[in-house]
Amino acid sequence: MSDRLSRLFAPRSVAIIGASGDPSRIGGRPIASMLAGGYKGTILPVNPNRPEVQGLTAYASVGDLPETPDVAIVAVPAKLVTETVQQLAARGTAGAIVFSSGFAEMDEDGAAEQDRMIAAANAHGMRVLGPNTLGLFDLRSGFYGSFTSVFEGGMPSVGRIGIASQSGAYCGHLVSVMRARGLGIAAGVMTGNEGDVTLGDAIGHMVTDDGIDVIAVYAEGINRGDSFVAALEAARQARKPVVVMKVGRSALGGAAAKSHTASIAGDDTVTSAVLAEFGAVQAHTTDQMLDIAQLATRRIYPVNNTLGVITVSGGAGVVVSDAAEELGLAMPEMPEDAQKRLKAILPYAAPRNPVDCTAQVLNDLSLMGQFSEAVVAEGGYTSILGFLTYTAGSPTLSPRLREQLRLLKDKHPDRLYVLSVVAGRDRIAEYEGDGFSVFEDPTRAVVAIDAMGRFGKGFARKPGQKPPSVPAISLPDATPTEAEAKRLLGQAGIKAAPEQVCTSPEEAAKAAAGFGYPVVMKIVSPDILHKTEIGGVLLDVGDEAAVKAGYATLIERAKQHAPKARVEGVLVAKQLKGGVECILGIHRDPVFGPVAMVGLGGVFVEIVKDVVFRRCPFGIDVAAEMIGSLKGVSLLQGARGRPKADVTALAEMLSRLSVMAHQAGDTLQSVDLNPVIVLPEGEGAYAVDAVIEIGGGDGH
Amino acid sequence: MSDRLSRLFAPRSVAIIGASGDPSRIGGRPIASMLAGGYKGTILPVNPNRPEVQGLTAYASVGDLPETPDVAIVAVPAKLVTETVQQLAARGTAGAIVFSSGFAEMDEDGAAEQDRMIAAANAHGMRVLGPNTLGLFDLRSGFYGSFTSVFEGGMPSVGRIGIASQSGAYCGHLVSVMRARGLGIAAGVMTGNEGDVTLGDAIGHMVTDDGIDVIAVYAEGINRGDSFVAALEAARQARKPVVVMKVGRSALGGAAAKSHTASIAGDDTVTSAVLAEFGAVQAHTTDQMLDIAQLATRRIYPVNNTLGVITVSGGAGVVVSDAAEELGLAMPEMPEDAQKRLKAILPYAAPRNPVDCTAQVLNDLSLMGQFSEAVVAEGGYTSILGFLTYTAGSPTLSPRLREQLRLLKDKHPDRLYVLSVVAGRDRIAEYEGDGFSVFEDPTRAVVAIDAMGRFGKGFARKPGQKPPSVPAISLPDATPTEAEAKRLLGQAGIKAAPEQVCTSPEEAAKAAAGFGYPVVMKIVSPDILHKTEIGGVLLDVGDEAAVKAGYATLIERAKQHAPKARVEGVLVAKQLKGGVECILGIHRDPVFGPVAMVGLGGVFVEIVKDVVFRRCPFGIDVAAEMIGSLKGVSLLQGARGRPKADVTALAEMLSRLSVMAHQAGDTLQSVDLNPVIVLPEGEGAYAVDAVIEIGGGDGH
Repeated sequence: MSDRLSRLFAPRSVAIIGASGDPSRIGGRPIASMLAGGYKGTILPVNPNRPEVQGLTAYASVGDLPETPDVAIVAVPAKLVTETVQQLAARGTAGAIVFSSGFAEMDEDGAAEQDRMIAAANAHGMRVLGPNTLGLFDLRSGFYGSFTSVFEGGMPSVGRIGIASQSGAYCGHLVSVMRARGLGIAAGVMTGNEGDVTLGDAIGHMVTDDGIDVIAVYAEGINRGDSFVAALEAARQARKPVVVMKVGRSALGGAAAKSHTASIAGDDTVTSAVLAEFGAVQAHTTDQMLDIAQLATRRIYPVNNTLGVITVSGGAGVVVSDAAEELGLAMPEMPEDAQKRLKAILPYAAPRNPVDCTAQVLNDLSLMGQFSEAVVAEGGYTSILGFLTYTAGSPTLSPRLREQLRLLKDKHPDRLYVLSVVAGRDRIAEYEGDGFSVFEDPTRAVVAIDAMGRFGKGFARKPGQKPPSVPAISLPDATPTEAEAKRLLGQAGIKAAPEQVCTSPEEAAKAAAGFGYPVVMKIVSPDILHKTEIGGVLLDVGDEAAVKAGYATLIERAKQHAPKARVEGVLVAKQLKGGVECILGIHRDPVFGPVAMVGLGGVFVEIVKDVVFRRCPFGIDVAAEMIGSLKGVSLLQGARGRPKADVTALAEMLSRLSVMAHQAGDTLQSVDLNPVIVLPEGEGAYAVDAVIEIGGGDGH
Repeated sequence: MSDRLSRLFAPRSVAIIGASGDPSRIGGRPIASMLAGGYKGTILPVNPNRPEVQGLTAYASVGDLPETPDVAIVAVPAKLVTETVQQLAARGTAGAIVFSSGFAEMDEDGAAEQDRMIAAANAHGMRVLGPNTLGLFDLRSGFYGSFTSVFEGGMPSVGRIGIASQSGAYCGHLVSVMRARGLGIAAGVMTGNEGDVTLGDAIGHMVTDDGIDVIAVYAEGINRGDSFVAALEAARQARKPVVVMKVGRSALGGAAAKSHTASIAGDDTVTSAVLAEFGAVQAHTTDQMLDIAQLATRRIYPVNNTLGVITVSGGAGVVVSDAAEELGLAMPEMPEDAQKRLKAILPYAAPRNPVDCTAQVLNDLSLMGQFSEAVVAEGGYTSILGFLTYTAGSPTLSPRLREQLRLLKDKHPDRLYVLSVVAGRDRIAEYEGDGFSVFEDPTRAVVAIDAMGRFGKGFARKPGQKPPSVPAISLPDATPTEAEAKRLLGQAGIKAAPEQVCTSPEEAAKAAAGFGYPVVMKIVSPDILHKTEIGGVLLDVGDEAAVKAGYATLIERAKQHAPKARVEGVLVAKQLKGGVECILGIHRDPVFGPVAMVGLGGVFVEIVKDVVFRRCPFGIDVAAEMIGSLKGVSLLQGARGRPKADVTALAEMLSRLSVMAHQAGDTLQSVDLNPVIVLPEGEGAYAVDAVIEIGGGDGH
């Protein structure tokens, strides 16, 4: 059906069912737009009451159409939609764009009707955009399968950015802002109710569209994980940056979430993890999304991004450094000899990076040339930001400045060049035309530059390690007990804190040898509650002899202090003192399937929510990366004189858990390993508590 | 000298020492700007070589001036500055603006020369702006005591925003952005080296300037705490919002910081605390600063800010809700009956808040009127945001829309009205003229709206409680031992964890009664290292009888298990189990004097840096507010089934510490109480470890 999808986006002929002669009406606006936009295909209005619509021959019904259209725009009342779609599908129409509302967005009945309508279409292989959609448009071909009113305010420039949006009105907003900024648009798709064609399908199509270099996405909630994930991976492989504004950050996923992991795994958290997995960059505001899209059209995506800054204001240098540091964008210092040379040229300059060459260079632009050449050539930065503010807008200065900048760019064409300039639109267009992207606000420039590096990293990523092989585990039908859960996890190679009740010194010694030293030993008796007070707990028991002696001591103390107590034996447990508390978990996301979580435990997970998610399964390398990206990772790395924790063991546990969850099938609802104690390097990681939640499958 | 300061900012006559006939030169540009700007005062060029400068009579020397100028602009080489300033001061000039560079910004010699020059001025009561400053300008009077080139790109509108900036170049950037946005400027001051007039002086003057409603500040580092604090408090009392972009967030204060508290107390952290104390709002980007300044010119500052949103796009509603939630800006739901009524009018509407009235209302603007009237009147919100995007730019729609909006505003003039609109400048000016502030990006609109509420809160703040009375403590000359530190703190009413070595059951019982039950008892012997293993530790000892029995038990066990051990007695200590670890500290900031810190202890302070600072001294109410603003405060409030901690005791401890630090004088460098254990409600808070650092006074 992918051919049909392509025809939906770029049809050679379009029927409008419910065509209107009034260009401001829902069934009239697409026709008016196509006529004005120079659409080269055939436009076939369908209207039972009029022989002609907006100067075009109209047909009374779908059956009366002289040819089968590639696409039909359906703008009829909801109750007539299914029948119309059925007729179109039967005639072999490739795709329908259903404007009509009153379906799943309204109520249960509407949802059922939507299902029937989609089924009628798909039965003949027809794809449906909508219902309840503002449609799609392609500024290059002039195909307007949309009744958005945004184009009435003027046409945006035609360019190489595609927009995929779950909101029609917000897509209109984006178009209007891009028009005001002079940002070029190729096409836009608004997915409405996503009865059939999803946001992922729209993105996926844009990946295959050679006229689109950058995809800007507005998402409220992903409905289909498979097409979304496939589109993101296709974009990554095609080196097409996807910038996503995912809204609804406040909303939590499952209101009925029972597990700890699920309670943290909001819809937004999981979506963010999926975006990060494929190197898509998330934007938090419209400005940010469009800044990033704008800069991405330069198609320069540094893998190891470094920023060199040339500024005429020391203050601006500090502004830029602050922003870069917050994002983790590296700003290495200039080489020392270059600094010395620049300082000799201009004693007031601060040549470290930011390179503050002061307003002095504006009096002698050859100095500007020397400084910028030094920054680019000797600093070796992948990205260059020049803070020139209003000075670059000066009519006397800008021609000579442009000349210097062009020389620089010709000599080093592979860098990403950004300017912070305040000037009129025409002047800015000149710099943009020379290959220098312009942002008024230096902080916004830094955010966009940083995003290019994140795209670069995503594009360059090699396939990860193969996940470890984990034996298939047959889950019970109902939620197992803690002990049973630990046994099942043990089969997957996930170790619980080992402990054993022993009834002889020899058994105790054997158990201890199995766990590894040191061990803790405790008297086991239902009648002795305060073990410590009778000396009934031994810590740091370090070898076989000590275990055997300890066994005797404990039995002896029990006899002495509580002669009547029933003594059941001695518990030998691996001593987990000195470890770092973590939490590991699995949450079955309704859209993306099982996702694994790792975080620092205790107060960290409760208050700071310092956790990382990732779709299952994944290898140990990815697990280690996840752990490394925790804010509090220094706790595991030996911060403040602590021993380094066994991150390798933790990563293996996490990776194994992800494989287990992936293999488990859809009855596995969640896993909580909380806490997991990560011992010092080489000593392993152990789950102290384990909960596996089993539930009904949801069809994933 | 405040009269002199006023004359510096608004002189009736200006001499330019080093006047040039070339309007592009440093000594020429101020004259050209004043001539072009219609300055009404007397301009007195001083140039030994020319009888006339730019058409004005020039004088050969300061001595030759026909009158004593209010202000002299000094644009002569550095080596001539002090002599010139001395002459001017001797003649009774009120203020000098010293453009010349080569002073403290250069080297030690320059700093010494700067001190001499300022002393020469101040000896006669003359105030100095600079040296190394781009000067100041007042667009209302046409007084340009500045050689900034920004005005060559066109004049900004004259308005009611004042700019105080430590960077000349960045001030120029701000002016150029404001000019591009059409934001009105009253005056701007660039403080340069701040040899005399500081950023605080500049802000303070703007507070007294009736033509300035809003003060936008760019700061790199506060040099003088007293004038800055005084200016912020004056602004607060005058209800003039101060929005501050403080850069250099990455830089840490004392590189040689020894104490834990000092290591967290970076220059930026303390400045942020001072700004928050006076209700000044911190902006993180230029866009943000100017957005906030723009909206602040409406002079509506809600004390309990709530946001009601009317939108034609559900998506935009989510964007706005996300932003408001992140800022903690309340968006209460519409009253239920109002929701029902709106739903009845328009079934597709989502009337909760955001009130999504869908694009439908654009077809029938009376609906728009009904919806917005309901939101404003029935929702009762102090701030209203209308998301209208490009629709409000439509030439057919906007006149009728403006009519509806004006009706609304006339009926409810006390609200803060903001629109998110994409349109041309003229149309936006219309909405602005009607009293509706316009932002293109809805997220930016929310940030600005939130800031108005923060101003409102700051303006409304009543004086805090009187700090508790704390006896004067005489600090030793050198850093005291831990025990001595605890004793000194004890005099201030700050309790350390109480413990005592006792040598009889009676003494133990008395100590325990003094501490409060339960207590912990431990055998004290240099020969018994593993106390637990011989049963040498008793927990939860709950009453007098148990203490006495426990004493005997411990001595008995020591005898039995270690007959040769020297037993020194039994340690009785207040049991602090079940408490929450916090950290309290004092850091002497070189600019603002002693600041107190409170944070959650352990990993929180290490990794999350979840701490709050405040200048000393302050009352218990402020201390409680500080604790309440910690991110992890829920740990103290009984999160996850914990008992509620004794926040009252912690607040009192913090307040007492602040008073002690304030009274201590400048030899107190720092105090670290880490950890402080906060027990369950009613049980108190105790410092477990205490370090007081004494050092040389720094003159504060």
